[in-house]
Amino acid sequence: MIMLSQDAYPTRTQQSAAILARHDPVVYDRLPRTPHHHVFLDDAQREAYQRDGFLLMPDLFDKEEITFLFDTMQNMREEFTHAGRPEVIAEPGSGEVRSIFNVHRLNEIFANLVRDPRVLNVAREILGSEVYIHQSRINYKPGFNGKEFYWHSDFETWHSEDGMPAMRALSCSILLTDNSEANGPLMVIPGSHQHYVSCMGETPDENYKKSLKKQEIGVPDEILLRYLADMGGIKSCTGKAGSVIFFDCNTMHGSNGNITPYPRSNVFFVYNSIDNQLETPRNGLTPRPEFVAAREDIAPLSHAPLVTA
Amino acid sequence: MIMLSQDAYPTRTQQSAAILARHDPVVYDRLPRTPHHHVFLDDAQREAYQRDGFLLMPDLFDKEEITFLFDTMQNMREEFTHAGRPEVIAEPGSGEVRSIFNVHRLNEIFANLVRDPRVLNVAREILGSEVYIHQSRINYKPGFNGKEFYWHSDFETWHSEDGMPAMRALSCSILLTDNSEANGPLMVIPGSHQHYVSCMGETPDENYKKSLKKQEIGVPDEILLRYLADMGGIKSCTGKAGSVIFFDCNTMHGSNGNITPYPRSNVFFVYNSIDNQLETPRNGLTPRPEFVAAREDIAPLSHAPLVTA
Repeated sequence: MIMLSQDAYPTRTQQSAAILARHDPVVYDRLPRTPHHHVFLDDAQREAYQRDGFLLMPDLFDKEEITFLFDTMQNMREEFTHAGRPEVIAEPGSGEVRSIFNVHRLNEIFANLVRDPRVLNVAREILGSEVYIHQSRINYKPGFNGKEFYWHSDFETWHSEDGMPAMRALSCSILLTDNSEANGPLMVIPGSHQHYVSCMGETPDENYKKSLKKQEIGVPDEILLRYLADMGGIKSCTGKAGSVIFFDCNTMHGSNGNITPYPRSNVFFVYNSIDNQLETPRNGLTPRPEFVAAREDIAPLSHAPLVTA
Repeated sequence: MIMLSQDAYPTRTQQSAAILARHDPVVYDRLPRTPHHHVFLDDAQREAYQRDGFLLMPDLFDKEEITFLFDTMQNMREEFTHAGRPEVIAEPGSGEVRSIFNVHRLNEIFANLVRDPRVLNVAREILGSEVYIHQSRINYKPGFNGKEFYWHSDFETWHSEDGMPAMRALSCSILLTDNSEANGPLMVIPGSHQHYVSCMGETPDENYKKSLKKQEIGVPDEILLRYLADMGGIKSCTGKAGSVIFFDCNTMHGSNGNITPYPRSNVFFVYNSIDNQLETPRNGLTPRPEFVAAREDIAPLSHAPLVTA
């Protein structure tokens, strides 16, 4: 029997891992200029993002803003630590707060931050359309015993578990602490966004409850990872607090653990094009909850006033 | 009852963690010059080691030598993987070979390597005496899932579990693969060797069977680690294969895990002064086996011919 599939990005259905070509643009055509859509990235930045699949912009937020945002994160951690809420993900082992999801709806300051033109404009520019937040979170990664995030393409999960149709989304990570070589910074494989790594294994229902702690499904094959890293190298995205990393939804990334005394904390927003709204998940899976993958709150984002302390 | 103790470096006996001053020199007086004791370190290098507690010497071994040594390590790994030998320590979790101890007695090539003047002379120079090997091992740290080594002072363990009397030993790590920022390089806290961090907890007998996989006793207090790191910073000892890191027995060090595809492999020798031979372990512990802490094979090392392929 021959199976016909319309899916350009099959995964978790195959007998073996595979590497497939990307079918979507990386940087989309510019939006028409209006007072609200002023150009933010120059040609060199667009080309770098197109080629590498990420862009590190130093010092996009100043010290005062970051102090304010860091305190906001700490207050959320304290408030949510023992609240037994599903948005809170614990570290495997220590039980410390690893991530809190949905911060742009749980907290007014982060609600404004996703609308800050410095990040929102970049998302619109690259995705060439109006955008909304597919997912948001703070990643605390504590000092001394912060655990690693293994290599993955976000799109592989969002496509299979959330039914995101195309590669027209990006992640934006705002550094709330200095991210040094030593405290487990984001590592990306430049150029990997041009290749879709189809993964082995079937997804169990409600997989997210485990996978947000430690991903075991949708894990790329070691030989393919080595192939991508040999081609593109590995880039550690280090920077001072206030720097921002934008990266394509299909860029292979991960991070090592953190035994230093210094937490590696980021706030993390996923912008998705309004032309790329979620469909039904693949393989008959139940949709993940709204706080992990937005299906309802998908109105285009408008600008907000700058963050101030 | 008042307990009197002659021990300058008490640990694992106290109610609380403490930080104590070092009582021993770091760099010892030079040996008298003889044809076999030619000076190898210059004054700047001696001063750097004295101040920082470590010295990174790039490219001490050339590419051909390293290829030969890397192959030697790989052959040992294959030979010993399923041999069920006590010298082989597995990774927690995956069961892959993490370390093999006693390589300078199990393998002729490593037996010669500990006598190579490029490393042996540095050990003699710094320790100001003839030396022998207290411990040797290869640390493989595989790619993809290599686990961290948490912060520790080697001397804290060697003093308490092996009865090493004074801080007159050093470790020498010869890099067999490139040690990059990304694959879990050795991290040291410069200046930490001047402070002795006394640890909490009692040592169970045969603790080494667990501690060589994952140290749980002799773990420094988090507040004291933070204090040392705030003072001295954290230095990642990265370098090309063939570089060598020498560090004091009391320098606080550790390393993060390794999710990159590239193993971070080193061969590791501990040189001890012949004037610093082991006494009985503290607190009535049974001495660890010869392959972890030499008590019998303690004759001064003489030079060997250079390693060649």
